[in-house]
Amino acid sequence: MKIGIAGGGQLGWMMINQGRKLGYHFNAIDRDLDYPGLRDADRGFRYDQYREFVDESDVVTYEFEHVDDRVLEYADRQGKLLPGMEPVMLKRDRSKEKIFLQRNGFPVARFFVADSIDHIAGEIDRFHKAVAKSTTGGYDGKGQYIITDGKIPPGMPEDRYVVEEFVAYDTEASVIASRDVDGRKAFHLASKNVNSKGMLLYNVAPMDDFGMREIVSSLLDRLHYVGTIGVEFFIKNGRPLVNEFSPRVHNSGHHTLLGSSISQFEQHVRAISGLPVPEPQLFVPSGILNIIGREIDHDMMSRILAVQGTQVYWYGKAGIRPRRKVGHVNVVSGTAEGVEEKIRSLMEILYGERLEDFLIY
Amino acid sequence: MKIGIAGGGQLGWMMINQGRKLGYHFNAIDRDLDYPGLRDADRGFRYDQYREFVDESDVVTYEFEHVDDRVLEYADRQGKLLPGMEPVMLKRDRSKEKIFLQRNGFPVARFFVADSIDHIAGEIDRFHKAVAKSTTGGYDGKGQYIITDGKIPPGMPEDRYVVEEFVAYDTEASVIASRDVDGRKAFHLASKNVNSKGMLLYNVAPMDDFGMREIVSSLLDRLHYVGTIGVEFFIKNGRPLVNEFSPRVHNSGHHTLLGSSISQFEQHVRAISGLPVPEPQLFVPSGILNIIGREIDHDMMSRILAVQGTQVYWYGKAGIRPRRKVGHVNVVSGTAEGVEEKIRSLMEILYGERLEDFLIY
Repeated sequence: MKIGIAGGGQLGWMMINQGRKLGYHFNAIDRDLDYPGLRDADRGFRYDQYREFVDESDVVTYEFEHVDDRVLEYADRQGKLLPGMEPVMLKRDRSKEKIFLQRNGFPVARFFVADSIDHIAGEIDRFHKAVAKSTTGGYDGKGQYIITDGKIPPGMPEDRYVVEEFVAYDTEASVIASRDVDGRKAFHLASKNVNSKGMLLYNVAPMDDFGMREIVSSLLDRLHYVGTIGVEFFIKNGRPLVNEFSPRVHNSGHHTLLGSSISQFEQHVRAISGLPVPEPQLFVPSGILNIIGREIDHDMMSRILAVQGTQVYWYGKAGIRPRRKVGHVNVVSGTAEGVEEKIRSLMEILYGERLEDFLIY
Repeated sequence: MKIGIAGGGQLGWMMINQGRKLGYHFNAIDRDLDYPGLRDADRGFRYDQYREFVDESDVVTYEFEHVDDRVLEYADRQGKLLPGMEPVMLKRDRSKEKIFLQRNGFPVARFFVADSIDHIAGEIDRFHKAVAKSTTGGYDGKGQYIITDGKIPPGMPEDRYVVEEFVAYDTEASVIASRDVDGRKAFHLASKNVNSKGMLLYNVAPMDDFGMREIVSSLLDRLHYVGTIGVEFFIKNGRPLVNEFSPRVHNSGHHTLLGSSISQFEQHVRAISGLPVPEPQLFVPSGILNIIGREIDHDMMSRILAVQGTQVYWYGKAGIRPRRKVGHVNVVSGTAEGVEEKIRSLMEILYGERLEDFLIY
């Protein structure tokens, strides 16, 4: 079986690492061959080789939404693309994703779509506090603006926006789930996510479900999904609102690499290759701490790994700069509180008092 | 950090797979580049490139005792070889290993060393039943002969032998342990091993320790060992006898890939690269079933993975023949008995009534 992965980031890199056990051949494609996922693939391709890449793969998937369209379209035409074009198309435009979720009855925050700053100014009195998100802009908090009492922040650029009512949530949460070619679904237990400056800093599983699993189950079926999905929620007064979904393995699912019976990455590889996806078992509370914007040397690696129940994934990215995720630490403990305690010790080692320096824009 | 692995078999392949998370560069060397471990290395070398292989590696280890001497000797001279020459030299000659164990006070079965069949015939009356093992012959039951009531089996070749009193053991067991550069030791819980025709068929952890850990601890110190070791025991009436040790990761330690806080492979990579080795935690009873001498197709893979709590490692070896280990299945369950039950179902899927066909010499 030859698996083709569009995108060469850490998600593809871990997909290959976790899928290797099955004896598969992995192709990967991106702008150039130096990406982590291409380095560890059996064969790396550049985007202009998209036809050969697809022809040489039995199935093609993506580890990121913003990959070269030619790859996705050609793979789709060849009937090889999983989980398919619809989820990517929805993710390429936040307004489409929001409208899709709302129309299909999934709980979301109140929102409107605005074509201009003037448009926002005309309707913003609906919400005391709102978040305007560029419909096509990136992720990790990029292209997002808080609007309080109708005041448009200075410097906010002209763009098309989804303007959502600000949710003062109690918890941000994720559910990682998988669906195989026969429609069987499997769910990792929900995690609590802790963000800083719009980026996932750490998370811990398990947490209470609050009905999230049922929502994700419907979403998987509605999308006729094959593979692994990550769905982010806001939990407010015990009620989940879908924030967004990622039609791929997700940073908030990296905790499944340690303390689980199967990782999100292996679930994805199994599902898209027509193998069964088992219901994951969480052996022990488990979380991750992202390593963002900083190098770690041998001494720091030793100090991190001297904390019991930790593993480090170092992505081997070419350049290290603020807000760039360059690795993560997996952490297990007997209790979810124990995981958070260890994460706090690890944050001390990794960031000291300088966390904000590593997250500046 | 650049890790050099001498030997390109599945043990090196899994070492690379498990060590990748640390962001290391892996070199591997063997007779030709088609071995599983060389295929997945960042760079593969042939034995005649041994100098370049060693020069390009910060530390050199071995995944098998019977690798080209030039690699080991040159790496040792460069001060790069871990866990060093002594363990390999002891393993190259069973008589040296046995005498070493006995002289250092480790419990072993009664034995004598014989230079010829005549020599055996002259001393065999010490033992009602004995096993003669070629001092230099291979592993997995090769070069071994049972001698009962002094009767030399017909066809037993002239060779140098270790002749051991046959131990009608209650259980064969293994302990996998690791020691870091500072002498700190860490132990995986013991496993019960079940052999068939001299080969490990399956095993299950945990089992009672019977003092094995203390023996392994002394052995690690005596060898000034750095890395992961596998030690096999016979348990008879609650007393452990050392059968043999393997100065490397070991087939009976593959269960550590699932249900443990760290695998034997990652422990080894950490230890030889100067990182701490944590005390492993076994989250849940865990075992493996070896896949020996047979291909598995997509349908069989599906049937195996449809059993909850299983993972398959398929080594991707070039040729499949009887007695060749070509993969294994990891299995977890709530109890050790549950693991054995699942293993029996998996044996039915893999071998049906024909197990012996896959194990014939």
